Amino acid sequence: MSVNHLIDLSDWPRQNWEKIIRLALEIEQNPSRFYGRMEGRILATLFYEPSTRTQNSFKSAMMRLGGQCVGFSNPQNSSVSKGETLADTIRIMNGYADIIAIRHPKEGAAKAAAAYSRCPVINAGDGGHLHPTQTLTDLVTLTKEVGRLDNLTVGICGDLKYGRTVHSLIKALTQFPNNRFILISTKELVIPAYMKAILDAAGCSYREVTSLTEVIGELDVLYMTRIQRERFPSEQDYQEQKNVYILDTEKMSLARPAMKVLHPLPRVDEITPEVDDDPRAVYFKQAQYGVYTRMALILTLLEKPCAGSALFQGSAHSGEACANPNCITHTEPYLKKSFIETSNMLMCEYCEHKKLI
Amino acid sequence: MSVNHLIDLSDWPRQNWEKIIRLALEIEQNPSRFYGRMEGRILATLFYEPSTRTQNSFKSAMMRLGGQCVGFSNPQNSSVSKGETLADTIRIMNGYADIIAIRHPKEGAAKAAAAYSRCPVINAGDGGHLHPTQTLTDLVTLTKEVGRLDNLTVGICGDLKYGRTVHSLIKALTQFPNNRFILISTKELVIPAYMKAILDAAGCSYREVTSLTEVIGELDVLYMTRIQRERFPSEQDYQEQKNVYILDTEKMSLARPAMKVLHPLPRVDEITPEVDDDPRAVYFKQAQYGVYTRMALILTLLEKPCAGSALFQGSAHSGEACANPNCITHTEPYLKKSFIETSNMLMCEYCEHKKLI
Amino acid sequence: MSVNHLIDLSDWPRQNWEKIIRLALEIEQNPSRFYGRMEGRILATLFYEPSTRTQNSFKSAMMRLGGQCVGFSNPQNSSVSKGETLADTIRIMNGYADIIAIRHPKEGAAKAAAAYSRCPVINAGDGGHLHPTQTLTDLVTLTKEVGRLDNLTVGICGDLKYGRTVHSLIKALTQFPNNRFILISTKELVIPAYMKAILDAAGCSYREVTSLTEVIGELDVLYMTRIQRERFPSEQDYQEQKNVYILDTEKMSLARPAMKVLHPLPRVDEITPEVDDDPRAVYFKQAQYGVYTRMALILTLLEKPCAGSALFQGSAHSGEACANPNCITHTEPYLKKSFIETSNMLMCEYCEHKKLI
Repeated sequence: MSVNHLIDLSDWPRQNWEKIIRLALEIEQNPSRFYGRMEGRILATLFYEPSTRTQNSFKSAMMRLGGQCVGFSNPQNSSVSKGETLADTIRIMNGYADIIAIRHPKEGAAKAAAAYSRCPVINAGDGGHLHPTQTLTDLVTLTKEVGRLDNLTVGICGDLKYGRTVHSLIKALTQFPNNRFILISTKELVIPAYMKAILDAAGCSYREVTSLTEVIGELDVLYMTRIQRERFPSEQDYQEQKNVYILDTEKMSLARPAMKVLHPLPRVDEITPEVDDDPRAVYFKQAQYGVYTRMALILTLLEKPCAGSALFQGSAHSGEACANPNCITHTEPYLKKSFIETSNMLMCEYCEHKKLI
Repeated sequence: MSVNHLIDLSDWPRQNWEKIIRLALEIEQNPSRFYGRMEGRILATLFYEPSTRTQNSFKSAMMRLGGQCVGFSNPQNSSVSKGETLADTIRIMNGYADIIAIRHPKEGAAKAAAAYSRCPVINAGDGGHLHPTQTLTDLVTLTKEVGRLDNLTVGICGDLKYGRTVHSLIKALTQFPNNRFILISTKELVIPAYMKAILDAAGCSYREVTSLTEVIGELDVLYMTRIQRERFPSEQDYQEQKNVYILDTEKMSLARPAMKVLHPLPRVDEITPEVDDDPRAVYFKQAQYGVYTRMALILTLLEKPCAGSALFQGSAHSGEACANPNCITHTEPYLKKSFIETSNMLMCEYCEHKKLI
Repeated sequence: MSVNHLIDLSDWPRQNWEKIIRLALEIEQNPSRFYGRMEGRILATLFYEPSTRTQNSFKSAMMRLGGQCVGFSNPQNSSVSKGETLADTIRIMNGYADIIAIRHPKEGAAKAAAAYSRCPVINAGDGGHLHPTQTLTDLVTLTKEVGRLDNLTVGICGDLKYGRTVHSLIKALTQFPNNRFILISTKELVIPAYMKAILDAAGCSYREVTSLTEVIGELDVLYMTRIQRERFPSEQDYQEQKNVYILDTEKMSLARPAMKVLHPLPRVDEITPEVDDDPRAVYFKQAQYGVYTRMALILTLLEKPCAGSALFQGSAHSGEACANPNCITHTEPYLKKSFIETSNMLMCEYCEHKKLI
């Protein structure tokens, strides 16, 4: 039986996502019934960059199942500072734990880890690339709070250019029928061309707008994200435009009674505190569903193996290096380069960066 | 059933303290009998400033009950560094844990946390303000080692001006009949006027002295604390006076056979190592009782709710801000200001700072 | 019943080592059978210098037995930064935990800790001095992978001058009959004279060579260690010689089919990644055996006390101070100095530094 990992949701058929969502909601109904299922098992949380929230969510999930946790939260405290490779750290941790959740600043790092692991690896965020447990959490939240994953009008507001969670969520929702997207951002922060290509290929309708107020009344779901101040072209632009993208009670008064507001958190000031008391604000529940989602995922990877695809489908191209400077293959040079060749492009199988050939 | 917190011992009637003390001593008799009572439950230790000793004491307490722990020990590693508010962190942690222990450098932070928490919050120290589990530990230690909480002559030696634990202990002991205090410090570090007002109001006798040697023979209890070198008016004063406040075997030879020495720890050099071997030195036992006390507190808050008072009794005074620059309301501006009005004063309900109106 | 510690393997008779090795291999056969044996017990991992790998190995071992862990991984986060002595930290931790594993940058620190502990103390590395759980792990690995601890030709390659694990392993293997050593290093990094004295006293044959290639064909075991670049006399020497001490597939092709390669890890570049796939490379298994070894050790110290010798055999020599500037007695001045006197030498009982008298 081959080892199962969760590196990229796209590696799994939609039925597998749905199994995890169903299990997460079953857990949500009665979490204590699942206590003890991971008794005697150990999760290693290897956080090469700190993220208290995500790390505690994984730890809480494992502990709610009766398991325990080892790991680290900080590269300075780890053997990494002595020059140990990622591959070695993973092989050593295989001796200490039964399942690994890894967060790493380099893109493709979770896949690189999986390539050396004898136990399941969960991608808890690899640079700006993927964060599949956040996307699964979003899907669980929508299923529970909105009641469906199809036939939705989904507004996504904020930084659509750099937002990792936004791209993953859109990709996931294109897999369900009849979802429409309203993409709300400044002109500088519109979604990238490759995301539009995905939307087009899936036959999804979408509109790009610059005003939240104008469209909020049409939405079943509003997915809010943060726009960092430095992403505006100038301080003057920031001061003029910031309120357009802040969700407040006034804008909420224009929304449908059944609309739900999600946010991957942490929130800074893009949602005013008054909105928290609105029953349509489900972002704190979302954080709670994140624990149930991770419980379902751990159970699935360790107890109910669903055949994953092979980690690598491509082939080595001698002499080729990935053109993404933030790809894990540059800092871990022993990794076997692997590219998928498509007509005139090579796609790195670690970070999915494409280059023309 | 409303959520119970422990923010300030004064919020609870004395009978509740006594229940916890009795339970702590019951646990002390046979700790392993309580193992498993918190099985499947999670304590979050949110330490916005590091304190290994207190954090490990809480974790040990939860683990001795069969529970597990998440949290952080360092603000740099937390989402705080991304600008998350305390309120958001608490609401997210509510999804991960069943009970929270918080230490924070700002005064009033634990109360602010409780105001947003759906689960019990324990104040593990909020700036220079309160540290109620230390005080409960002191009361458990006195009950066990001295045999009573009343009719005591209590010497308190060291920094009486800034010592948070000293003020809390004095306040607590004024609630029991016939306690007398001998307050031993330099002239610069005498207890503040408001503490004298509390002693007077409770009808407690007290004396202020500058020599430990002169009074040690009268004491049932000697509570030692550290005087930081920089609290002396000059280096010359420090060199001249420091030995007056150091407890050594010579001074111990003047004390009663039944006197007990307590210290909140960590100790630096205010008690010489030779005193450690004296059976009257109970400060290491005190650290042990701290675990039993926290076990009793966790059990009480989660299993045996004793009705706490409402968190806030006061009312908003529009336009008022707390005058204490270290109050949590300044760094977390969304908090609803709340003041208790008494004749010509307003008292902030977070940090208890009073200002004239 | 006196408390058992593991400070130095030499404190124990060889039969005790063999009991632990047998138990570790019994655990290796069926680790889950031992789950629950430490239920309700707590291990404190006190790491005064960070070592993620060793700390996680100890934690994993305790958790595999059903126990839990407290502690710290970083002196900055600990009460140490407030000036607390090692003795006080240990006595406080005695209230929080049932067994302690300590790593400390100062030599003799683990023994100093044991002198103040009411529960077993395990030395997890004290400066450049000792690291007995690594040595036990090496012995378990040899027993399992090579099948015996005697009649071995053991090559030890790398930094033989400063390598703590190397010295401990050689000392341990001299206790078993007919072991021969081939010591492979640069001339600057040959083993110290006192290690040669130990080899001579035990009647062990050994050779010092500068080429790994020349001798690899003779070995039953090759123990690799890292040579730090700065240990070469010059950058030119480093560039000329470094490849001599790097194990690669070419050198492996000269080795016996039954030879095994060990390494205490972390590995930097002294073994090329290609060697990892060679079945004779057992260094990652070694990390796994480290967990079983520590499980066996914890069980032995807490469940099956094997009488240890008294911590100190020597006597105070008034006015004497240890001449080793890195000895724990300098930073913890309250420690009772203790020296063993042998003809014309005094040996410090903390760090084992010898000085002429």
